[in-house]
Amino acid sequence: MASQEAVVLEKKELIQIESRPIPEIKNPHDVKIQIKATGICGSDVHYFTQGSIGDFVVKSPLVLGHESAGVVVEVGDAVSSVKVGDRVAVEPGVPSRYSKETMSGHYNLCPHMAFAATPPYDGTLVKYYLSPEDFVYKLADHISFEEGAVVEPLSVAVHANRLANTAFGQAVLVLGAGPVGLLAGAVAKAFGATDVVFVDIFESKLEKAKQFGATRTVLFKPDSDENDLVSLVTKSLGGLHPDVVFECSGAEKCIRAAVKSVKRGGTFVQVGMGKDNINFPINEFSQKEATFKGCFRYYEGDFDDAVKLLSTGKVNVKPLITKVFPFEQAVEAYKHNVEHAKDVTKTIITGPQ
Amino acid sequence: MASQEAVVLEKKELIQIESRPIPEIKNPHDVKIQIKATGICGSDVHYFTQGSIGDFVVKSPLVLGHESAGVVVEVGDAVSSVKVGDRVAVEPGVPSRYSKETMSGHYNLCPHMAFAATPPYDGTLVKYYLSPEDFVYKLADHISFEEGAVVEPLSVAVHANRLANTAFGQAVLVLGAGPVGLLAGAVAKAFGATDVVFVDIFESKLEKAKQFGATRTVLFKPDSDENDLVSLVTKSLGGLHPDVVFECSGAEKCIRAAVKSVKRGGTFVQVGMGKDNINFPINEFSQKEATFKGCFRYYEGDFDDAVKLLSTGKVNVKPLITKVFPFEQAVEAYKHNVEHAKDVTKTIITGPQ
Amino acid sequence: MASQEAVVLEKKELIQIESRPIPEIKNPHDVKIQIKATGICGSDVHYFTQGSIGDFVVKSPLVLGHESAGVVVEVGDAVSSVKVGDRVAVEPGVPSRYSKETMSGHYNLCPHMAFAATPPYDGTLVKYYLSPEDFVYKLADHISFEEGAVVEPLSVAVHANRLANTAFGQAVLVLGAGPVGLLAGAVAKAFGATDVVFVDIFESKLEKAKQFGATRTVLFKPDSDENDLVSLVTKSLGGLHPDVVFECSGAEKCIRAAVKSVKRGGTFVQVGMGKDNINFPINEFSQKEATFKGCFRYYEGDFDDAVKLLSTGKVNVKPLITKVFPFEQAVEAYKHNVEHAKDVTKTIITGPQ
Amino acid sequence: MASQEAVVLEKKELIQIESRPIPEIKNPHDVKIQIKATGICGSDVHYFTQGSIGDFVVKSPLVLGHESAGVVVEVGDAVSSVKVGDRVAVEPGVPSRYSKETMSGHYNLCPHMAFAATPPYDGTLVKYYLSPEDFVYKLADHISFEEGAVVEPLSVAVHANRLANTAFGQAVLVLGAGPVGLLAGAVAKAFGATDVVFVDIFESKLEKAKQFGATRTVLFKPDSDENDLVSLVTKSLGGLHPDVVFECSGAEKCIRAAVKSVKRGGTFVQVGMGKDNINFPINEFSQKEATFKGCFRYYEGDFDDAVKLLSTGKVNVKPLITKVFPFEQAVEAYKHNVEHAKDVTKTIITGPQ
Repeated sequence: MASQEAVVLEKKELIQIESRPIPEIKNPHDVKIQIKATGICGSDVHYFTQGSIGDFVVKSPLVLGHESAGVVVEVGDAVSSVKVGDRVAVEPGVPSRYSKETMSGHYNLCPHMAFAATPPYDGTLVKYYLSPEDFVYKLADHISFEEGAVVEPLSVAVHANRLANTAFGQAVLVLGAGPVGLLAGAVAKAFGATDVVFVDIFESKLEKAKQFGATRTVLFKPDSDENDLVSLVTKSLGGLHPDVVFECSGAEKCIRAAVKSVKRGGTFVQVGMGKDNINFPINEFSQKEATFKGCFRYYEGDFDDAVKLLSTGKVNVKPLITKVFPFEQAVEAYKHNVEHAKDVTKTIITGPQ
Repeated sequence: MASQEAVVLEKKELIQIESRPIPEIKNPHDVKIQIKATGICGSDVHYFTQGSIGDFVVKSPLVLGHESAGVVVEVGDAVSSVKVGDRVAVEPGVPSRYSKETMSGHYNLCPHMAFAATPPYDGTLVKYYLSPEDFVYKLADHISFEEGAVVEPLSVAVHANRLANTAFGQAVLVLGAGPVGLLAGAVAKAFGATDVVFVDIFESKLEKAKQFGATRTVLFKPDSDENDLVSLVTKSLGGLHPDVVFECSGAEKCIRAAVKSVKRGGTFVQVGMGKDNINFPINEFSQKEATFKGCFRYYEGDFDDAVKLLSTGKVNVKPLITKVFPFEQAVEAYKHNVEHAKDVTKTIITGPQ
Repeated sequence: MASQEAVVLEKKELIQIESRPIPEIKNPHDVKIQIKATGICGSDVHYFTQGSIGDFVVKSPLVLGHESAGVVVEVGDAVSSVKVGDRVAVEPGVPSRYSKETMSGHYNLCPHMAFAATPPYDGTLVKYYLSPEDFVYKLADHISFEEGAVVEPLSVAVHANRLANTAFGQAVLVLGAGPVGLLAGAVAKAFGATDVVFVDIFESKLEKAKQFGATRTVLFKPDSDENDLVSLVTKSLGGLHPDVVFECSGAEKCIRAAVKSVKRGGTFVQVGMGKDNINFPINEFSQKEATFKGCFRYYEGDFDDAVKLLSTGKVNVKPLITKVFPFEQAVEAYKHNVEHAKDVTKTIITGPQ
Repeated sequence: MASQEAVVLEKKELIQIESRPIPEIKNPHDVKIQIKATGICGSDVHYFTQGSIGDFVVKSPLVLGHESAGVVVEVGDAVSSVKVGDRVAVEPGVPSRYSKETMSGHYNLCPHMAFAATPPYDGTLVKYYLSPEDFVYKLADHISFEEGAVVEPLSVAVHANRLANTAFGQAVLVLGAGPVGLLAGAVAKAFGATDVVFVDIFESKLEKAKQFGATRTVLFKPDSDENDLVSLVTKSLGGLHPDVVFECSGAEKCIRAAVKSVKRGGTFVQVGMGKDNINFPINEFSQKEATFKGCFRYYEGDFDDAVKLLSTGKVNVKPLITKVFPFEQAVEAYKHNVEHAKDVTKTIITGPQ
C-alpha cells in the first residue's frame, strides 16, 4: 500500500511528521482530495498542549488538521456532483446516514459523527484525504486554497448566524475578536446587520475587526466590571440593546455581559469555549425572556453559504491569515501558534507537495 | 368617592385590610369587575416576607392579588366583547398600546407594563377592579370562580409550553412539582406530550402530580448528586432524553440537571425563580446545541388557551386548590401560606362580599 | 434464486398474481420483512383504472402496494435498531442519502426517491420485502398488522398536521371525509384542536367522522354554492373562522371554500388530489394574508408520531378498515375498491401466507 | 375651524382640489404632520379609473394619498418618540389597539383598520395630517421628502421579504418590474439574496431593474407560453430553481410560472393584484410541497427596516421617481399616471406649500 506523510500528534506536546497509508476509495460516493492548505484551529492547539478537549482524549497517535482545501484527484463510481480537477473546501465531519438526527436535518448532532482530528478519527494534514462527494464544496477560481482552508471556520460563523436568525437592520454584538468572532461579525454584516459591535481586550484585535464588519468597537479591560462592559456596549449603540449577541470568548465576564446586554426577547449564541462551568445570571436572563442557544459545528447549507460569502466578496478572509508555513514546517507552525498566541489570527499550512 | 376594602401589604411582614376608593371607568374600553376569588401566588408571599422581588421593592402600601376571577358589573361605552353579568378571569398586567414590544406581539416585554400587585401598581384583592375589555376572559358556566382564579398561573404554564413548542409525541421533564410545575406538566400533556416526568423532593407532591399529567415520577433527594438525578430521569424514559424540560424549581442542582438531561438539540425553559446566579454547565449546554429560553408572564393567546383547557376539561385545576379563606381572613390566608409552605399548593381567597 | 408471488399491475385495468424473485439483503443496513397486511390506496386504484398518475406512467409491469406492515425475518450486519421477530410498519419511500434535500431534513422532496409501487419501483404486495432499518417502525404488541398497514396513510395525516402547526385550542376544518381526511381530523384532535369540523357530500362519511375527532359535521350538496359551504362552516363554529384547513377532497369548490373560510392569517394545507388546475380566488387569498402549503408524503418523525398515535390509543384506525381480503383474492380486492367506491374507506389485503 | 386644501376623488374619473378642515390633536399620542411629498399608488389610480377596489367602493368624496412624508409640527401631550421639526415618513394605516390581531403582532390583519384613502377613511393629500406617534418614522437628514414618500411602498417590499424569510445566498425571482417589484428585488438583495432575476414584458423596465438589485433579467413576450418563461428563468439561474418568488404582476401566466419555477419546498409570495380568480396548477404546487403566502400591507418593523434601507444606502429609491408635480397640479399628476402608464414608475406630488 502506498504511503504518504502525515502531521501526527503522538501525545501531549509532541507533534511529528510520520508515514501513513494513502487511502483508497471504497464507497462509490467518495472522492479523493489532494490537500493543498490547512488552517490551524484552536482545538488542534488545545490537543497539542493539553492532550484532550472535554471528553475527547488523545490516547493514540492522531493525524491533525480539519480546516482544509485541495483538489479532487479521483472520484468514486457514483460521484456526480464534482469531478477530477475541481478545487474544493472539505467539510471535515461525516455523520451516519441512518441516524434520526441526520435524517431530520441536524447531522451536526449525530451521535455517530466521524470528525477529522477528533479521536479516534484522523485528520486532514496528509497528502490524500477521502471525503463523500456531498462534503466537498467547489471554490470559485479566484479563491486561493489558503482562503479555501478558512471555509471551515467561516462555516462555524455561518452556523451561528443561522441559529441566531441574524436579519437586516439588527444590532449585533460580538464578544471576542478571535478568528471565529471576526468571522461571526463579518457574516452578521453580510446577513444584513446594520450595527456590529466588537468587544475585545486587545486594541490590535479591534483594529482588525474593522476589516470584518465592525461598525463600532469597545475595548474591555480584563480587570474591569462586567456592568461597565454592558454600559459601554449600550452607549456604543446610542442607548439601544443588541438584538443578537455572539459570545466568542468563552470568558465568564463576557458571558454574563451577553445576558445583561441583549435586548428583551433577544437571542444570545454561545460560540466560544472556555471553562466548563460559569456563574450565570439566570433571573435576569429569564425575566427578559431571552433565548440562549448552544452552537455546535455546522449542518446542511452552512458550507454552501460560506463558499458563496467568499466568491461574492461579501466576506474577505485574507486579513485573517497571519502566517503561512509549508507542510515540512508543520511542527514549527504549531509551536508558533502556541508561542505567539496574541499575534496569531489564523496560521495556514500549505501542501504537502 | 365610594370606598371599598382592600388587602394591603403595608411593609415587609405586615398585611392588613384597609379602605381604598372604588375606581370609576374612564377609558371607554374598560370594564369593572366584582372580584369573587383570588389565588395567593408565591410572589405575594415573597413580597410579604421579604418586602421585595429583585428590582421591585415595596416602598409604600401595596394592594395585593393578581390571580383573580369575578363578574363584570359595568362596561365602558366602547366595550363590545363582554357584557354585564359575564363571569371572567382577569389578566393582571396591562401593557402600553404604543410600545414596539406590544405592537410586535410581545406585550409581556413591554417596558411600560402596569402589573397588578407589582410596585407601584395596586392589585386585585378588592371588591371592584378595572380592566380593559381585552384583558378579561369569559369562564364557562361550569367553571367556578375558584377555578377561574387559577387561570392566571395556568396561563404561565401555557406560555412556557408555547415557548417550548411542546408537541405530540414528546417526552417532557418537569423539575419541581409546585403549582406552576404541576400546571406546566398538565398543559404539556394536553398539548400532546406522550411522556411527562415530574421530579420533586417530596413524595406528596409527586403523588399530586399524577393528577396533573405525570406518566412517571422521580423522587430526588436534595443531598444527592445532580448526575444521579440525570440518571434517574433517563432511566425513567427507557434510556431516552427529554425533548423539552421545564425547570420550575429555581434550584441550582435542578437547573444543572436540566442542561445535562435534555436531548441534543432540545429545549429547556426556565419557569421557576431562585437565586440570581447559578453555576451553569455551559460547555455541555453548547456542545449539545440546546436552546434555553427565559419565560416571563404571558402574551396574546395564553389566557385564551388557559380558559379553553379548563372548559374542555383537558386540565382539571381543582386538585390544586388546597385551602379557601374568605376575604375577611385574608391576613390569615397569607400567614397560612408561610407557615404551612410544604402542604400548600394553591390557597384561594373568596370575595369580598 | 427463490421466488415469491406478487400482485402485479400488468397494464391499465389488468392486475394479476405473478412470480417474482425473493430479494436478498446486500446493504448491511437493510432488513427483510415478511409482509402481513397491506392497505389499498387511492393511488393504486388510480394506476389500475388510468394507468398513470400525473408524470408517473405504468410502462412495464409494476408490483403494487405501499401501505404495509409485517415481521422482520432477517437483518443486515449493520442493523442495530430492530431484530428478527419485530413487528413493524414499513415506510415505503427511500431517498438518496446524498441529496441536499435529504441532508437538510426534507427527504420527501429528494429527487432520487425510490417509492414503492411508483414506476419504476416495485411495491410491497409480495411475501418478502427489503427496507433500510430506519424505514421500519416497531408496532406495539396490541396493534394488529391490519392497523399497522394504516400507519402509512396516518403518517400522511401527521405530516399535514405538522406542516400546519396544528396546536391546542385551534379550530380545524377538514374538507373531504375519505381515509386521509378522517385521519387528518383525528390527528388534529390528538394534536390539541378544540374544534374539528368535517365536510363531505355523504352523510355516511360524516357519521364515520364522529369516530375520527369530529366535533361538528357539515353536509355539502355538490350542486350548491361554495359560499353556502363557507356560511355553513362559519355557522358551525359560532361565527368564527377555522385556524387551519385541510383540503382532502381535491374538489375545486372545496379548495375555493377553503380559501374563503380560513381565518385571516390562517393556514390551509392541500392534502387531496383532483384536477391539475383549478380556479383559485387569489385576491381573497392574498388580502387575508393566508398561508397555503403543498403537502407531499412524509419525512423524519411522521411515522414515529403515527405509531405513537396508535399505541397510545389517541387515534383508533379500526373503524377505517371496511373490508379485508386474503392475498389470493388481491385482484378481487382492487375490483371491490373500484366497484364499491362510496362504501369503501380502507380495504386491507392480508398475507401472503 | 381652520381649513386646508385636499385632493379629493369625487367619484369615478373626477378628482378635484377642495377645502377640508384642518384636524386638531385629541389623542395625546397623536402628532400633526405637515405633508411635504406624496407618491401616487396604483391603488389610487384604480379608484380614480374604476371607483372601487374589490369590496372597497368610493361612495362619497374621498381624500386621496397614502404614501407621504412630512414634518412634525405639533405633538400631543403623551408623545415621547418624536418632536416638532422631525422629518418623518407616515405609516398610513392605524389599527385598533384592542383587537386580537393587533395584540398578537399582526395588526395588518386587524378588522378595525383605518387606512388612509381607503373608504371611508380620508387620505394624506392635505397640508396637515394626524397620526399616532408610533406610526411616523424619522428620516435621516440626507433623505429627501420625495424619497421619504417612497418609504410606504418600500415597506410593502420589506413585508414581502420578511414573509418569505429571504436569506443570504438565495436565488430570488421577481415577476413584474413595477414599483413594488423593483423594490421587492432591491430589498431581497439587501437581505442577502445572491441572485435576483427580474421578469417583465418591457425591456425598459428590465433596464431599470439593474438599479434595483437585478443580477439577471428575463424579457417575457406576453403571447408566449408560461412554460417558456419557466425555462428562461431556470436557464438564467444555471439550471437551478429560485428559492423564493415574488409575484408582483398579478398576471395569470406569471402566477402559474411562479408555481412552476419555484424550487421544491420553496416559497412564493403573492404581492401583485390582478384578476380575482386565476387558473392555478394546484397539483404541481402540492407535489413540490411549496409554500404560498398572501401578502397584505405591513406590520411592526417593516417601516423601521424601510427607513434603515434608505439611510444606509442599501436601497436607493431615487431612480424610482420618474416625475414630480406640485400640489396645485395634483389632478394633472393623476392623469399623467393614467395616460403614460408604461413610462411611469413613481410619480410624486410635493407640498402643499
